Amino acid sequence: MTGTAPAPFTADDYRARMERAAREAADAGLAGLLVAPGPDLVWLTGYAPTAATERLTLLVLAAGRDPVLVVPALEAPDAAKAAGAPVLTLRDWIDGKDPYAVTAALLDDRGRFGISDNAWAMHLLALQKVLPATSYTSLTESLPMLRAVKDAAELELMAAAGAAADRVFEEIRQVPFRGRRETEVGAELAALLRRFGHSQVDFTIVASGPNGANPHHEVGDRVIEHGDMVVLDFGGLKDGYGSDTSRTVHVGEPTDEERRVHDLVREAQEAGFRAVRPGVACQEVDRAARAVIADAGYGANFIHRTGHGIGVTTHEPPYMIEGEERPLVPGMCFSVEPGVYLPGRFGVRIEDIVTVTEDGGRRLNDTTRELVIVD
Amino acid sequence: MTGTAPAPFTADDYRARMERAAREAADAGLAGLLVAPGPDLVWLTGYAPTAATERLTLLVLAAGRDPVLVVPALEAPDAAKAAGAPVLTLRDWIDGKDPYAVTAALLDDRGRFGISDNAWAMHLLALQKVLPATSYTSLTESLPMLRAVKDAAELELMAAAGAAADRVFEEIRQVPFRGRRETEVGAELAALLRRFGHSQVDFTIVASGPNGANPHHEVGDRVIEHGDMVVLDFGGLKDGYGSDTSRTVHVGEPTDEERRVHDLVREAQEAGFRAVRPGVACQEVDRAARAVIADAGYGANFIHRTGHGIGVTTHEPPYMIEGEERPLVPGMCFSVEPGVYLPGRFGVRIEDIVTVTEDGGRRLNDTTRELVIVD
Repeated sequence: MTGTAPAPFTADDYRARMERAAREAADAGLAGLLVAPGPDLVWLTGYAPTAATERLTLLVLAAGRDPVLVVPALEAPDAAKAAGAPVLTLRDWIDGKDPYAVTAALLDDRGRFGISDNAWAMHLLALQKVLPATSYTSLTESLPMLRAVKDAAELELMAAAGAAADRVFEEIRQVPFRGRRETEVGAELAALLRRFGHSQVDFTIVASGPNGANPHHEVGDRVIEHGDMVVLDFGGLKDGYGSDTSRTVHVGEPTDEERRVHDLVREAQEAGFRAVRPGVACQEVDRAARAVIADAGYGANFIHRTGHGIGVTTHEPPYMIEGEERPLVPGMCFSVEPGVYLPGRFGVRIEDIVTVTEDGGRRLNDTTRELVIVD
Repeated sequence: MTGTAPAPFTADDYRARMERAAREAADAGLAGLLVAPGPDLVWLTGYAPTAATERLTLLVLAAGRDPVLVVPALEAPDAAKAAGAPVLTLRDWIDGKDPYAVTAALLDDRGRFGISDNAWAMHLLALQKVLPATSYTSLTESLPMLRAVKDAAELELMAAAGAAADRVFEEIRQVPFRGRRETEVGAELAALLRRFGHSQVDFTIVASGPNGANPHHEVGDRVIEHGDMVVLDFGGLKDGYGSDTSRTVHVGEPTDEERRVHDLVREAQEAGFRAVRPGVACQEVDRAARAVIADAGYGANFIHRTGHGIGVTTHEPPYMIEGEERPLVPGMCFSVEPGVYLPGRFGVRIEDIVTVTEDGGRRLNDTTRELVIVD
């Protein structure tokens, strides 16, 4: 559970990532990076403490200096087991001592630092207090694409997670839907994700009938009925890397309108996917998918962005959203997941994880995008 | 999973908590409180989003104003189901809009605000940027005792969680230890916690032999042997409130030294417990337990504070630590958990949750603190 990430990376891999991060930080005019427990720390060091707590754990990276992990003495033995530990200096502190003073001694006291998005506010406030001439920017603001481009080993893990999610869909489409609660089907999705190798289940959305019109509905007590559209959206982490796919199925024969809306979303998803190629701005993927839906008169019913990045988390930059002008780069992985939501009636969403290749995009999910009829 | 906390509190209960929090904030010279997803938000509103994400969710409390929950539009339907929602104004924002501008419009632009310890740094930095004349302090620094004093209904839930943890110990002491991996016994602890009503398992420490000398060792592959001391420390949430108890058991007959160290820790735990009464500084609980261990020559082997608060989390203020001069108040709940750790050899820790009564302390754990011999 603790001390190590499951992915098969070596201390040298982590050293290379930390060096690149420090270099990119310097290029961005930063004096260094401050990395709190969470996905950035896992990616940079392989270290995942059991829990993020009020006790400060913080990786300090600065160009030309060795990386230092400030860590509570109690947790130092676990940290020392992380795959990246051999290339880290552990600086432990014991209860009753001031960890911010320990950290401050490692920092340029007039520097500007990138800090993990999810670092606790209490830790940031304490650093701002002990070093009043420093300033801070979130990692997403300063180095949004730090983890966005996956290397070959990471892409293999992403593809394996996607293939596992596809096996989950192939199984779940065989199970009975009618007469069962969303919670029951959701529990099956979770069990299938684990059966096909996921160590962490992040979401198992089963949104039937009118619940499908709420894009973030998870599962509820509603009993699925004949004639329901059902949005399935599930994913998690397998070997440290994420899956996330959506398919919308129908219990029994759909109406003409249901089929038309599903076809529309499928076309929009295809259009978003076809927009993917190196150098294109992220927002173009959103625009391409959105245009299809808007042209059909459903623009007001597509109430979220088209996609989000995925990697050691299931939700991260780059975002496929209007206003995101940064370009797609080979190795990026993100969702393409347009939807149409008709309040009080039903919803449709179709989602694949797509990775950018040298000349376009490659889907990491490959189950049918046609409307599947379930029992 | 989403939208509601399991505890049986009403909208009126949440209104009273929010009013008290706003009043205490005003008394502390704050313009308001900014509460992020996590235990503070659960306690104040009953709302627990599925996950804390880069999308801003923030409760804004200010004396004399109605509470407002800034929430992503996608998550607003879930938020509206929270038990506290009827006494909240939901202010939703859609992808592509600036949630910090929405929040800023609710705030005194020169005010000082308390913000949840665990609010994301990226959200705090964005608020600091959009309202440069505001200032911030963490909730633990400004209102550390906001959730510390439990009311009668909360104390009932705390006592029930403690009783469930006691049932777990009574069961686990019957199982075989010798020849099994720590991970196996840990899995049994987790299953027992769930069987006795826990919805969330936070930790299941099984630290055998030399692993016991690392206070934060969780479970490992080590096979437990005859002659091992084994530290068991387990807890989680039952009906929204926490349990956390430790007992140290021995596989077969202990040596004289092992028994002596165990007796010493038991005396220290008793001394810490006896120090509990209203008006006494938290640090006195730590001092009382520590003195017993130090007097016996093991002071350097007690390498953590004596205790931590517990409530809707298993780890929160008040802390029983040198330097914490705030007084104990009836209704506070915290652990008393001294330990002795002998590197490379073994460790002993004994822990009960204790609540402050009008004239002393009451233990919420009541299994034997004598050294239990297991098979």
